[in-house]
Amino acid sequence: MTNGEVFVWELLGTATLILLGVGVVANVTLRRSLGRGGGWLLISFGWGFAVFTGASVSAPSGAHLNPAVTLGLAVAGRLDWDRVPVYVAAQLLGAIVGATLGWLVYKLQFDTHDDPSGTRGIFCTAPTVPGWPWNLLTEVVATLVLVVWILLSPAARAGEQGVPQFGNSALGYAAVAFVVVAIGASLGGPTGYAINPARDLGPRIVYALAPIRGKGGAEWGYAWVPVVGPLVGGALAGLLYLALPTPA
Amino acid sequence: MTNGEVFVWELLGTATLILLGVGVVANVTLRRSLGRGGGWLLISFGWGFAVFTGASVSAPSGAHLNPAVTLGLAVAGRLDWDRVPVYVAAQLLGAIVGATLGWLVYKLQFDTHDDPSGTRGIFCTAPTVPGWPWNLLTEVVATLVLVVWILLSPAARAGEQGVPQFGNSALGYAAVAFVVVAIGASLGGPTGYAINPARDLGPRIVYALAPIRGKGGAEWGYAWVPVVGPLVGGALAGLLYLALPTPA
Amino acid sequence: MTNGEVFVWELLGTATLILLGVGVVANVTLRRSLGRGGGWLLISFGWGFAVFTGASVSAPSGAHLNPAVTLGLAVAGRLDWDRVPVYVAAQLLGAIVGATLGWLVYKLQFDTHDDPSGTRGIFCTAPTVPGWPWNLLTEVVATLVLVVWILLSPAARAGEQGVPQFGNSALGYAAVAFVVVAIGASLGGPTGYAINPARDLGPRIVYALAPIRGKGGAEWGYAWVPVVGPLVGGALAGLLYLALPTPA
Amino acid sequence: MTNGEVFVWELLGTATLILLGVGVVANVTLRRSLGRGGGWLLISFGWGFAVFTGASVSAPSGAHLNPAVTLGLAVAGRLDWDRVPVYVAAQLLGAIVGATLGWLVYKLQFDTHDDPSGTRGIFCTAPTVPGWPWNLLTEVVATLVLVVWILLSPAARAGEQGVPQFGNSALGYAAVAFVVVAIGASLGGPTGYAINPARDLGPRIVYALAPIRGKGGAEWGYAWVPVVGPLVGGALAGLLYLALPTPA
Repeated sequence: MTNGEVFVWELLGTATLILLGVGVVANVTLRRSLGRGGGWLLISFGWGFAVFTGASVSAPSGAHLNPAVTLGLAVAGRLDWDRVPVYVAAQLLGAIVGATLGWLVYKLQFDTHDDPSGTRGIFCTAPTVPGWPWNLLTEVVATLVLVVWILLSPAARAGEQGVPQFGNSALGYAAVAFVVVAIGASLGGPTGYAINPARDLGPRIVYALAPIRGKGGAEWGYAWVPVVGPLVGGALAGLLYLALPTPA
Repeated sequence: MTNGEVFVWELLGTATLILLGVGVVANVTLRRSLGRGGGWLLISFGWGFAVFTGASVSAPSGAHLNPAVTLGLAVAGRLDWDRVPVYVAAQLLGAIVGATLGWLVYKLQFDTHDDPSGTRGIFCTAPTVPGWPWNLLTEVVATLVLVVWILLSPAARAGEQGVPQFGNSALGYAAVAFVVVAIGASLGGPTGYAINPARDLGPRIVYALAPIRGKGGAEWGYAWVPVVGPLVGGALAGLLYLALPTPA
Repeated sequence: MTNGEVFVWELLGTATLILLGVGVVANVTLRRSLGRGGGWLLISFGWGFAVFTGASVSAPSGAHLNPAVTLGLAVAGRLDWDRVPVYVAAQLLGAIVGATLGWLVYKLQFDTHDDPSGTRGIFCTAPTVPGWPWNLLTEVVATLVLVVWILLSPAARAGEQGVPQFGNSALGYAAVAFVVVAIGASLGGPTGYAINPARDLGPRIVYALAPIRGKGGAEWGYAWVPVVGPLVGGALAGLLYLALPTPA
Repeated sequence: MTNGEVFVWELLGTATLILLGVGVVANVTLRRSLGRGGGWLLISFGWGFAVFTGASVSAPSGAHLNPAVTLGLAVAGRLDWDRVPVYVAAQLLGAIVGATLGWLVYKLQFDTHDDPSGTRGIFCTAPTVPGWPWNLLTEVVATLVLVVWILLSPAARAGEQGVPQFGNSALGYAAVAFVVVAIGASLGGPTGYAINPARDLGPRIVYALAPIRGKGGAEWGYAWVPVVGPLVGGALAGLLYLALPTPA
């Protein structure tokens, strides 16, 4: 597979993921939206099944959708380091495209929201209690669970030799979706579970640049945490994978 | 497969889909119903698993259930154009049958509802903030996600050469259900996610014609949006499919 | 497989189903239960995954768990009529065992409930708006959807030649669970979706006979509806199956 | 597989399970957490998908994660008794590691909670109505359902001859997750469904020892119930398995 093909499939998959993910938070948040007040389970399933949709669409490139996954695979020796920049660039651009589409889909709801300065949470994450060492730890641990699962689970082992992570049936993509639902339900409470640098940074850039009615600041001071935390978690997962015994 | 067989299976599947879909909105809406106030996640899962049920029943005809899917497959060169009218006619008739059954199942609840003029939303969609260009965009993007997924996902590729879209296991049908849950949770907030011309038009015709107690108008002025938007989204998905590189 | 083996597996599966199903309604209803007020989606998933659990346990006998399913298979010519009484007796006895266990699991919660006369709904169904012709229609249609799906879905076709309905993987059992979630979410609002004569009659007998603190009457006047309605729906499903074209 | 390898995989899987399980209760309970008040369905899915994640990670050792499962397999003659202490030690240590990580992930939320003496429920279970014979019965029955399912279901039969319980696809792990969702939704109401001695005892030890802000007592008087109950349930499941006819 050429770098160009990797770029196209990762961009398409990540754009789909972020469009749906930004969408579910908009649906729960905005005053004139039918899902207003839908609760954390709706958000957890929304992001989980967004991963399902985006990942199965980008099956040809292995459905990373996340620089922390790409880094973990490279550290684990299951991806050439040369590929890493191609994946990451596509993921970030895909996240920007997806967040822009998500805003446009909810344009009239943004324009009629009663708390316009509070819409940043639709795009990017924030801690409920600021304190960077602990916020960082939360993102590291949550991403570690995700990438360890991807490296170890039987569903993902099917793709060990080549690019595809989850084989050619829908099952592996459903499996990773269930893991993302689990992480959201369980570890998303303190920081909103970025667990993906592109998922947080791409939409934050869109929030900073797009002419969203009455918007507030993009909180750049926190923006490094959901980038560095997931990357550290992904790298640790790769190292743990190398340290574990080889399954029979 | 004869045109008559296609017609029977699509009619049966679409009737099942719309019976269950109209049913879940009735359950959440009507005052004397056990699911009253069940929230958006109940609606999202209700419609998603309605697709699962209807799609697996109509497996022999490929489980389109949706003129936008039929159009996308034809544009992508994976369905003969001659078949399109057969599929669409069966889908529209199936939607009318399903919506009629849904009304009859909830007949006593319709008769005892406290806001009889507000039952139109059980049958057909409406925007929370009217404004046709944006409402149309929402329906186009949401349907684009659905039909791109159907054209690209490994689950649906199994059926590339012939009529069946999702093969002969339950997995592909579960997969499309998860995508519909994702779209409902994420992109359903602004317009109620028709994403299917038959899903909106068929029940709207039933609402207009059936002797539903205390009913209001059928809002024909909006009815073209959930028809045209999904068709545009389905056609765009077919064009995108043709433009993408062929997966290995 | 001997009649005795069929009896054991159907009894075990139906007892599991009804234990879990009675359990989820108890959990949502009783004042000192952790799931109190959990809502209709919890009930829909509880009953659906109860079917998953019970059905996969009773795989050797084909996992009917429901006289309406047994009848539909017999009408469709896929089960010997001689077997029908064996299945039905095991299902009814299993339902009685399961409901008894469910009551014992929640014994302290029954004893501390604040509305003891309102616990009948934990055991058996009741219409929100009485009116037997419409209540019956609701049960007929909801059961028709279930049994048509079982007869037609690719998951269940795997077992067409012999006893097993859903093959030897977990997939078919998950599939029927999703259908039961769909029916509960969508068609359960008017009558509480018995869709299974054993599911309603067995627990109603337990409610009538067990020394449940402060209990009210068992409402025998309605008890025929959730028996006859599902049987009619199952038989109609078998007839529809015979009338449909044979899938390729 | 060496005892050391069994130890590593069970420890990793159980730590993942308990990290996610403790996490979801923290998310629903703590005042400054995004999932606050998320309800019983969020808890049921959180624990269920925690099992999915932990079980698929520990596939090489058969994914017991639970001394009651280990005991049931040994009683049923499907695990060497020599292995039992290895499994149980790894499970208990894994639960301690997981609960510690769960506390650290939510450290700032524990520090800002408005009812610090009420955080024990995040770690270990308690009955809503104390009364040990009935509490014990609840845990016995709920664990019996789990372990009978594991011993009998087609998904788990795939692993009958060797260590692996759920084969090498994601399906068996999803199946056991659905069963755990079912048990939580249905039988979790009276005692909080430990159904696993390590799940309750490990986090209770962490609660007793860790410097959690403003914590209360660990309620050691109840601690034996969620240990003995699940072990009895697991052993009964093994005996029932031996008594049942062999499926064809």
